[in-house]
Amino acid sequence: MNTYGRNFRVTTFGESHGKALGAVIDGCPPGIALAEADIQPYLDRRRPGTSDLVSARSEADRVEILSGTFEGVTTGTPLALIVYNSNQRSGDYDALRDLFRPGHADYTYHAKYGIRDHRGGGRSSGRETLSRVAAGAVAVNILGCCGIRVAGSIREIHGKTGHAEMEAEIRSARDRGDSVGGIVEVIVTGCPPGLGDPVFGKLDAAIAAALMGIGAVKGVEIGDGFAAARASGSENNDPLTPEGFASNHAGGILGGISTGQEIVARIAVKPTPSINLPQRTVDAAGAEREIRIGGRHDPCIVPRIVPVAECMTALAVLDAFLEREKYRGFLEKEE
Amino acid sequence: MNTYGRNFRVTTFGESHGKALGAVIDGCPPGIALAEADIQPYLDRRRPGTSDLVSARSEADRVEILSGTFEGVTTGTPLALIVYNSNQRSGDYDALRDLFRPGHADYTYHAKYGIRDHRGGGRSSGRETLSRVAAGAVAVNILGCCGIRVAGSIREIHGKTGHAEMEAEIRSARDRGDSVGGIVEVIVTGCPPGLGDPVFGKLDAAIAAALMGIGAVKGVEIGDGFAAARASGSENNDPLTPEGFASNHAGGILGGISTGQEIVARIAVKPTPSINLPQRTVDAAGAEREIRIGGRHDPCIVPRIVPVAECMTALAVLDAFLEREKYRGFLEKEE
Amino acid sequence: MNTYGRNFRVTTFGESHGKALGAVIDGCPPGIALAEADIQPYLDRRRPGTSDLVSARSEADRVEILSGTFEGVTTGTPLALIVYNSNQRSGDYDALRDLFRPGHADYTYHAKYGIRDHRGGGRSSGRETLSRVAAGAVAVNILGCCGIRVAGSIREIHGKTGHAEMEAEIRSARDRGDSVGGIVEVIVTGCPPGLGDPVFGKLDAAIAAALMGIGAVKGVEIGDGFAAARASGSENNDPLTPEGFASNHAGGILGGISTGQEIVARIAVKPTPSINLPQRTVDAAGAEREIRIGGRHDPCIVPRIVPVAECMTALAVLDAFLEREKYRGFLEKEE
Amino acid sequence: MNTYGRNFRVTTFGESHGKALGAVIDGCPPGIALAEADIQPYLDRRRPGTSDLVSARSEADRVEILSGTFEGVTTGTPLALIVYNSNQRSGDYDALRDLFRPGHADYTYHAKYGIRDHRGGGRSSGRETLSRVAAGAVAVNILGCCGIRVAGSIREIHGKTGHAEMEAEIRSARDRGDSVGGIVEVIVTGCPPGLGDPVFGKLDAAIAAALMGIGAVKGVEIGDGFAAARASGSENNDPLTPEGFASNHAGGILGGISTGQEIVARIAVKPTPSINLPQRTVDAAGAEREIRIGGRHDPCIVPRIVPVAECMTALAVLDAFLEREKYRGFLEKEE
Repeated sequence: MNTYGRNFRVTTFGESHGKALGAVIDGCPPGIALAEADIQPYLDRRRPGTSDLVSARSEADRVEILSGTFEGVTTGTPLALIVYNSNQRSGDYDALRDLFRPGHADYTYHAKYGIRDHRGGGRSSGRETLSRVAAGAVAVNILGCCGIRVAGSIREIHGKTGHAEMEAEIRSARDRGDSVGGIVEVIVTGCPPGLGDPVFGKLDAAIAAALMGIGAVKGVEIGDGFAAARASGSENNDPLTPEGFASNHAGGILGGISTGQEIVARIAVKPTPSINLPQRTVDAAGAEREIRIGGRHDPCIVPRIVPVAECMTALAVLDAFLEREKYRGFLEKEE
Repeated sequence: MNTYGRNFRVTTFGESHGKALGAVIDGCPPGIALAEADIQPYLDRRRPGTSDLVSARSEADRVEILSGTFEGVTTGTPLALIVYNSNQRSGDYDALRDLFRPGHADYTYHAKYGIRDHRGGGRSSGRETLSRVAAGAVAVNILGCCGIRVAGSIREIHGKTGHAEMEAEIRSARDRGDSVGGIVEVIVTGCPPGLGDPVFGKLDAAIAAALMGIGAVKGVEIGDGFAAARASGSENNDPLTPEGFASNHAGGILGGISTGQEIVARIAVKPTPSINLPQRTVDAAGAEREIRIGGRHDPCIVPRIVPVAECMTALAVLDAFLEREKYRGFLEKEE
Repeated sequence: MNTYGRNFRVTTFGESHGKALGAVIDGCPPGIALAEADIQPYLDRRRPGTSDLVSARSEADRVEILSGTFEGVTTGTPLALIVYNSNQRSGDYDALRDLFRPGHADYTYHAKYGIRDHRGGGRSSGRETLSRVAAGAVAVNILGCCGIRVAGSIREIHGKTGHAEMEAEIRSARDRGDSVGGIVEVIVTGCPPGLGDPVFGKLDAAIAAALMGIGAVKGVEIGDGFAAARASGSENNDPLTPEGFASNHAGGILGGISTGQEIVARIAVKPTPSINLPQRTVDAAGAEREIRIGGRHDPCIVPRIVPVAECMTALAVLDAFLEREKYRGFLEKEE
Repeated sequence: MNTYGRNFRVTTFGESHGKALGAVIDGCPPGIALAEADIQPYLDRRRPGTSDLVSARSEADRVEILSGTFEGVTTGTPLALIVYNSNQRSGDYDALRDLFRPGHADYTYHAKYGIRDHRGGGRSSGRETLSRVAAGAVAVNILGCCGIRVAGSIREIHGKTGHAEMEAEIRSARDRGDSVGGIVEVIVTGCPPGLGDPVFGKLDAAIAAALMGIGAVKGVEIGDGFAAARASGSENNDPLTPEGFASNHAGGILGGISTGQEIVARIAVKPTPSINLPQRTVDAAGAEREIRIGGRHDPCIVPRIVPVAECMTALAVLDAFLEREKYRGFLEKEE
């Protein structure tokens, strides 16, 4: 299941230390102006090596469009996007070949497939999100043509909310050889009402799946989220007025369908599992071992997850948008 | 999108005040003993009218198997499950024909379809979950044959965790004409490692979609969930030992694949939107109106959501289980 | 895989001698006037017992809409259609419990599932097509609203093409206790250009799958079909003129996409496998047996397959129509 | 819809004169030995320029595996296969920019998308089958590990069946500037009984869709095909004996499920539409024009379609094989 979406279908491929990563998009509308320059900025935002707070692995991460456009415009045929890997210091990982890194998918991939590319996590690496960001950036572009914007921001790092405190938390974690997590919020503006499908294609369920599918995410909230569980109905219901809804506790979605308000989603991002401290683990033979992960790692993945969360949300919203388009002609006929 | 699952595919139908609700299950394994008596207990648990804390609507909600079994055993052909509606006091809803109830999907269905069955919420009614519970109970039975158990419980009502306090919160809400929400936890035991598919078919993403697709749910957590966002990597990583994982902060899923530990999911349930207090709203023409919802409603939907959450989780897990089965022969050949 | 379609998704259920057969349609556009009377005529056309040339089993086969309409109009929610079985002379089949009827799916169902409802073929019975016809009749109605008509006709019976000869062939087969097959043609008129999706969702591939999925069908042709394999390019190419195509060897589809001309499909229908003559077979234990099938059977299934072929074609065309709708807004924006 | 399959899912991309063509395979079993050398022979068989009977375009068509294997073995993650285009004489096509070639998809792509890559047919080019052959060759390899073989052969060229006559027909067409079609047969041996799913996932329906999805194919037959429509039931039924079926009119499939016999499929291939003779057509403005197609074209595409037909059949069979695997554990438990 490396495909996301029913209408705007994204299939990703590639391992952290393989030849290339990429995505094929099937169902891209024709007639959209699209070039590498529309996609590259999103890749640059998730790229490592951009500040002292993130991993120093310095990949160029240049995206190339292999098919699906003609003279700078999408043709409706599959878009193939590719990013070649260049800076593959696979040797860094030789010591880890038979060890399961705690908090990583090493053990579960081994349990599932019996075989795995151990270099940098292979397919389970955070580097896989590069494919999603490339594809999601195309979705962001198309949504933009329809007046829909998707913007993410950091709300918390290790429980702290102020900008200086958040940076300090990351630096402190890095200096201790440890890591920290945080909370990211994504807001969609300009979304028309009527997107999302009952009962199993609800927009909030689609967003939840999209966001929970990002490696480090352990929780998803829509609107007031867990706080809604502690409110009363009279507080939590959003009154309707002739000018629109008077509040937005629901986060822009009712019964799985967009209300036309801002869509608000928040995710809990766990601390990066790669830490420079000794940890207990076992090897493939089940024997007790100690592991200390060297190499180039992020003390906090949260900043780099922001564009990934935007892109995954964009994919979910665009998919619902195209789904609704199918029936628009019938609704207009009716009126 | 009224179908859930890729392998064990459940398609539901029916409105709150239509003739019947039901589900068709495609992809049910053959050779499983199955009768109405295996499904009915789950419907009874979600049924209204069972205590003074839930809605008094008293439907019999008797499930009937229309196809897919022969002499008490599944044949591998589609299972059709049906529950006829009997106690349809649709008259209760005449006053609501042109009004949008705050917190309900009335407005969004209107925006999406232009037409809706307004009686009791129609398809967006909580009564639709009856179809899922019928189908989910079949999944629970099949998982049981494979040694996998799914059990839900209430963790909080309106912020309270003790049993007596939770009951008091519901009674107090009912007496005020208001409503309250809460938190439900679902635990899966006996799940083998290796279930779930990278990168878009992750088990946690599937569970998140399954649970967020329940009407009143506004948040989903796996394992430590939002608390993980406030922990450090050294605290949050689960060490591996020769005897297994030393802790379970991850909630039984790493990289989207089950670890073999208990799977732990929690959901935030919003307070029931139907409250017996005056609320501001508009009618279909956009004019300002006041609404006060009579009829038979739950002051707290949380107890009745427990079996729904169990059933949706069971559907997600069974689907991943069948997905893994496809490749089992290849893995065994390899060994 | 009891679901057909990506956009207008039909899931069927039911066995020949079970309680009921039916279909759930997910993805039906809202706002379409629809009642049982719109569907029933198609069921009546495929019903047995209507002349001396077809099976005498006399089922009423009354369809009932259980959900998805409100006050006579579709709401966009799932349409559940059901037909209860009444005339179940299952006793007729007791002698066949452990025997595999030649030409039927008895052996293959046994090989696949290990268990089967042997009564009248169970799920593999031609009676299953009743569900498809019910669902397909809805598709025919919707296409009709869009100016698209689907009409089938018999072209050959047992190699004969004249009406009197064809009837004589059927009567002769019946009198001999034997059966005959034939060829059915389906023509779609009013289909706009642009339906069908490269490369695996081609309209001709979708029609081929839809028609080959009818039990007795062993071949499918589009346009000139097998005759095209014997023509030269200069004969087979359809010239374009300012007034449109000058011929239609292609059968209305080029590169998997409709040209706007008539779509022409033909199917080869094998002779009914149930014959009243002694045949060699084996039982479930593999022992040699002779079988002579009594009961009520059609000496020629071709007349009753005509509405089934129309309905399956309608489902394929409607699905492609809805697929194209998704991108129509983008194309109009472009112009 | 550029994805084929439910379990072994192949998504193709690329245009005839773009940068590259390729395929991503999702759902490939882990643990299969696989290298470029296992795939290349199939590409070589469909490659142009191999004899004086086929197009002289001489592409190297070297396939490269970009992801999904590790140390020569599949890992269960997506296989990305790529073939770079090298010999792109796009200039050949400038004269065709605004003309619709008869028998090609030029007009229908224009009608569908409003925009198209006109160079060599772009996505609708026969060159697209290169992606399918690359992916299908992987399927052939996996089936081979399971004892299943797929082999195609030419049965007819322009109505002729002898080898010398067939070659003469192709040469004659080439010399006249015309083209001819023919019939290809694919036989699957070693296929176990029980593959294929009622009622819409029938193995014959899947094969029909797979084969009809090849550009030039206008008809598909299983077993006796159209001849079955002219036989009687007593002739057409395959008797069962303790030693197995006594004949194979059904072509190895009954009720959509494999019988364990040879699976036999035949396709009608139309004559290549590109001919070196004057033809009537119109341009994008609808004005009358004459067209005479130069460039490098096949007077008969049939020889090059053989590996494509094998590969598409292999994809259909492997998909059904994996589908059956899901339920094997349940069937074994039952026994």
